[in-house]
Amino acid sequence: MEIKIMKNILDRNQNKAEEVRNLLFSKNVMMINIISSPGAGKTTLLERTCEELVPKFRIGVIEGDITTDRDAMRLKRFNIPIVVINTEGGCHLDSHSISKALGSFDLDNLDLLFVENVGNLICPSQFDLGEAFKLAVVSTTEGDDKPGKYPMLFREAKAVLLNKTDLIPYTNFSLVNFKSDLRNINPHVPLFEVSCTGGEGLKEWYDWLGKQIDAAR
Amino acid sequence: MEIKIMKNILDRNQNKAEEVRNLLFSKNVMMINIISSPGAGKTTLLERTCEELVPKFRIGVIEGDITTDRDAMRLKRFNIPIVVINTEGGCHLDSHSISKALGSFDLDNLDLLFVENVGNLICPSQFDLGEAFKLAVVSTTEGDDKPGKYPMLFREAKAVLLNKTDLIPYTNFSLVNFKSDLRNINPHVPLFEVSCTGGEGLKEWYDWLGKQIDAAR
Repeated sequence: MEIKIMKNILDRNQNKAEEVRNLLFSKNVMMINIISSPGAGKTTLLERTCEELVPKFRIGVIEGDITTDRDAMRLKRFNIPIVVINTEGGCHLDSHSISKALGSFDLDNLDLLFVENVGNLICPSQFDLGEAFKLAVVSTTEGDDKPGKYPMLFREAKAVLLNKTDLIPYTNFSLVNFKSDLRNINPHVPLFEVSCTGGEGLKEWYDWLGKQIDAAR
Repeated sequence: MEIKIMKNILDRNQNKAEEVRNLLFSKNVMMINIISSPGAGKTTLLERTCEELVPKFRIGVIEGDITTDRDAMRLKRFNIPIVVINTEGGCHLDSHSISKALGSFDLDNLDLLFVENVGNLICPSQFDLGEAFKLAVVSTTEGDDKPGKYPMLFREAKAVLLNKTDLIPYTNFSLVNFKSDLRNINPHVPLFEVSCTGGEGLKEWYDWLGKQIDAAR
């Protein structure tokens, strides 16, 4: 019974997600659904990416959080459109809340819309938001076993960003084990090894992202 | 509508949780529900705790994982009873799966039963498993803003264990901010500042845990 209910919820979510996807396609807006554990570095990644790509690209952000607008506050200085969705305990965003949030953006003046999903490796990967693609962010301090233990997200992601590479020397994280785990699940997904605080490796991410935007135009 | 369905699920979960709680109470078994983000260090905490407390206490473990039995494998060397619950995509354990798992333990020969919940700061905090109490584990590398951003767990927890204190020098984690955030939500909850890999601070955790077990006897 619970599975059936879940299926209905997912079906309704999927229908609305297709609506969102069609709308964004017609407006030439690329929406990226960023998913990670709590504290893996999604907001810091957005800060770095805005520093590099604003105003080259017209960027907007939807901030999904259970409560508080702390992440949005960290992005305020870029003077870009930001909408906060507080899920009030909900463990993921869904396409209906995204659809509503889109009403607050001027989609004709946007190239790129980042969705920072609720910090959770599991539930967000099951809900299509109408995004162009999912970006999985994972940090070295979470351990090298995350792709194997949370395969759904790593299977769905169009790109994987491994953050906090600067902390590898202080942990038992093995890049070899991580990659082997990841490649078992998603053999060809682009992997960016970066430190969002130090900046190492981010150029490859910016370049790849720029190419995705150009290709979508 | 979705809220009503959710309420039914939670009601059914709560009823079974009370059954589990009564059973464990009658058997003098203290069950601890360990909840954290992916990779915060739950399994490493269990390894350290078993090294210290086996065979002084008779310990069992229920390992909740989406897939794989990797965490259970790490505990095999202690030769203690372990049951793995694979949720097959599910984002939390519930009291019905715990109730079934209990059938595999000899409860008359157990003092302490650890439940390592699925790595997720959100959903597990909403499902009572019939535990004596919830232990929140959070690591410094996740950032100092986790209590404020994920208040449910930190409100519910009877103890909070802050792991990876050895990595503080390499991050922008502020212990002052973390404590202020935590104390806003749960003013008097015991806080253990530890490094599960290095061992710092764990003695206070062992001592406190021993006292809880003695008090419950």
